[in-house]
Amino acid sequence: MTKPLILITNDDGLFAPGIKALIEVVKEIGTPIIVAPDSPQSGKGHAISIHEPLRLNKVTTFGEDIEAYECSGTPVDCVKLARNVVLKGRIPDLCVSGVNHGSNVAINILYSGTMSAAMEASLEGVDAIGFSLLDFSFEADFEPSKPFIKKIIEYTLKNGLGESKLLNVNIPKLPLADIKGFKVCRQANAGWKEDFLENKDPLGKPYYWMSGEFVNNDSGPDTDVQALEDGYISVVPCQHDLTAYKAIKELKNLEEM
Amino acid sequence: MTKPLILITNDDGLFAPGIKALIEVVKEIGTPIIVAPDSPQSGKGHAISIHEPLRLNKVTTFGEDIEAYECSGTPVDCVKLARNVVLKGRIPDLCVSGVNHGSNVAINILYSGTMSAAMEASLEGVDAIGFSLLDFSFEADFEPSKPFIKKIIEYTLKNGLGESKLLNVNIPKLPLADIKGFKVCRQANAGWKEDFLENKDPLGKPYYWMSGEFVNNDSGPDTDVQALEDGYISVVPCQHDLTAYKAIKELKNLEEM
Repeated sequence: MTKPLILITNDDGLFAPGIKALIEVVKEIGTPIIVAPDSPQSGKGHAISIHEPLRLNKVTTFGEDIEAYECSGTPVDCVKLARNVVLKGRIPDLCVSGVNHGSNVAINILYSGTMSAAMEASLEGVDAIGFSLLDFSFEADFEPSKPFIKKIIEYTLKNGLGESKLLNVNIPKLPLADIKGFKVCRQANAGWKEDFLENKDPLGKPYYWMSGEFVNNDSGPDTDVQALEDGYISVVPCQHDLTAYKAIKELKNLEEM
Repeated sequence: MTKPLILITNDDGLFAPGIKALIEVVKEIGTPIIVAPDSPQSGKGHAISIHEPLRLNKVTTFGEDIEAYECSGTPVDCVKLARNVVLKGRIPDLCVSGVNHGSNVAINILYSGTMSAAMEASLEGVDAIGFSLLDFSFEADFEPSKPFIKKIIEYTLKNGLGESKLLNVNIPKLPLADIKGFKVCRQANAGWKEDFLENKDPLGKPYYWMSGEFVNNDSGPDTDVQALEDGYISVVPCQHDLTAYKAIKELKNLEEM
């Protein structure tokens, strides 16, 4: 039997420990092929490079036996280049993105390069999973995540993702024994309360630097934020149709104008 | 009565004719305040600047009586800076983005800086509309769009956007007399078939440059693509909850693993 072909990318770049952890898990299940950014690309969302050329270089970062490439573009560029240039005719059985250093719950999916890369693969018809660990640190411990990442990849390869084609998986920062398992849930209606650091550069010109805190006003029991607080791994099936169907009827009188 | 305060941004940059057309319409209805990118930002999606400082400069591009700023960041950065630095306590009654030079139908909403800026405003609780004209040209004629843009802004200020808070409005490239009016519809399940131009730079190193064609496999009569083909302005109410609710039940057995 041929081993499944699994495309791996991320947004923290090729040298982040999170992608190394993901490759280690994938190696036990199938054939990994890596196309990842050559620099950190956090917060790049679904950005693509229209006005600039892209570079793509083969690398041996993960050993001579692992096919891997670094790309100068965004996470979504990586997936597009993987499909059209690196893989050409080969269709991956799955695309996995991450493991991100830090949370991608709630609306963070919109800003997240990790999730946008996975979404791009799903748009192209490939089942995709974005993984994030709730620990921003470069030294984050990915070991407790590994058995769960393996389980959900094996589940997906066996069963497919049906109506969704895309999962947003967030893993709590807990020891293995304290992780209670998976919880399939919805995206919390939570967001950011931003603030901007205001300062002056060495030439005396002002600059602004975004900061902020995550605020959850959604007290529903069935959200990703709640699942993580309860010690579960949150699994949100996602879609790329942003139509607000309920609002179509409300707005129909626009057509009379 | 106080005139409504209307925040204006775009992704083509402060010098694009599309934003000028939008400002001209808004001036007839309310008080415009402009925070727009200082360079073209097409395809930047929902990208934000986390690792770089942002610049913000007051400009008189649109006349001494119009409050306007150029920002070094992405369209979403512009909206965040507008809210937190420029407007501070003032809450706009509406945010409008565009008019984009080129279509933003179907899944282009994910890649579009125009729509991501509008979505960011809606995330912050402000009704928002993204406008796009189906003409990529810098010399595109925005005159036929203007009466319709005025109508839908007035409708939104009067009635609000209800369940959605965000509209994706695409305008066909037609003379005024041939535009049939508004059609409220859903996002077509259409996408891109990419190709990459492959070439060598002056040093002989390879580069890749994305190109592609838009492919619509969605033959539904109720899509934005169809509305535009029929000579209507498409209006898609949008949301930021990407949860695929139908798939939650399908995946519940993951919780038993």
